[in-house]
Amino acid sequence: MHKIKVSTSERNELIDITDKVQQAVNELGFVKGVITVFTPHTTAAITINENADPDVTRDIIYGLNKIVPSSGYYHSEGNSDSHIKSSMIGASEQIIVESGQLKLGTWQGIYFCEFDGPRLREVWVQSN
Amino acid sequence: MHKIKVSTSERNELIDITDKVQQAVNELGFVKGVITVFTPHTTAAITINENADPDVTRDIIYGLNKIVPSSGYYHSEGNSDSHIKSSMIGASEQIIVESGQLKLGTWQGIYFCEFDGPRLREVWVQSN
Amino acid sequence: MHKIKVSTSERNELIDITDKVQQAVNELGFVKGVITVFTPHTTAAITINENADPDVTRDIIYGLNKIVPSSGYYHSEGNSDSHIKSSMIGASEQIIVESGQLKLGTWQGIYFCEFDGPRLREVWVQSN
Repeated sequence: MHKIKVSTSERNELIDITDKVQQAVNELGFVKGVITVFTPHTTAAITINENADPDVTRDIIYGLNKIVPSSGYYHSEGNSDSHIKSSMIGASEQIIVESGQLKLGTWQGIYFCEFDGPRLREVWVQSN
Repeated sequence: MHKIKVSTSERNELIDITDKVQQAVNELGFVKGVITVFTPHTTAAITINENADPDVTRDIIYGLNKIVPSSGYYHSEGNSDSHIKSSMIGASEQIIVESGQLKLGTWQGIYFCEFDGPRLREVWVQSN
Repeated sequence: MHKIKVSTSERNELIDITDKVQQAVNELGFVKGVITVFTPHTTAAITINENADPDVTRDIIYGLNKIVPSSGYYHSEGNSDSHIKSSMIGASEQIIVESGQLKLGTWQGIYFCEFDGPRLREVWVQSN
């Protein structure tokens, strides 16, 4: 397993980790198959989305904030919205690897989703 | 493939199956890589979330019920909300295994999500 | 990797690709383990849901349209709702294979989710 460190600076934030995941694939020496990109946190997630116009990630955060209300829950830590977003987006993504390279669509990037930052976070990469 | 039986008692319920998944990994004799935890039902899902404060799973159910209205659909069985939640949360999770042990974050548990119970359900575990 | 072509005809549409994925498994000669079904587009997704009553997929589209508003975003292309749905449903699904056959529940089908069609799309299948 290869570990990536991610430092976030907002409560809700999407950070492009594509290059770091490619570096992890290189260091694992993985050539062909599928890798899992997993975050071990319950108020964060991994997603794949557009890497061209930064308004897209801004809109994903804005849209999720409208869909998932931030108050009105039981859990005393006040971050139940973060836990719900984490389960909606999911703890991991799977990406095909060929000739040691991540196979992504033209506009796809891999994103670490922070839903309860700012914090120092981890992402784990393992070949399947 | 290893099969886990899950008996649910509410219409919407999250049940911690982490120990049963670890037992499946043991029985499969799987040592290193990634496993898939998959549910073969279309009104259920698998998620990873906090295993410490039970208010978190309670809030996830409460939050999803607010996000996904329970009525106003075409499907005559009256469980379209259950199908939508199933696709939003997802039919499977992938978890890294090292030295025969599930690698999860400190606060992470693996949950079977019942969205149309109570029922007797199955979860399938297979090494990738 | 095996590539599937999908031609969509609506802005929002769920298309059953189960047979095409089984055909991909056959052509890859994959016998046992887990396969990844991945879409390289950022306004589409892959999901698993009911294949019996077509009202279910109709309700999933209807429900997602109510959950994710179609306007009020920054991104100038006017398809931020499509990007949000893509991240909520997810770019891939993982399915167990035994004796060369996809292992799905009785009512489960694999669906390509179009959220910004009509377009010509791709789905990539790879054994893990």
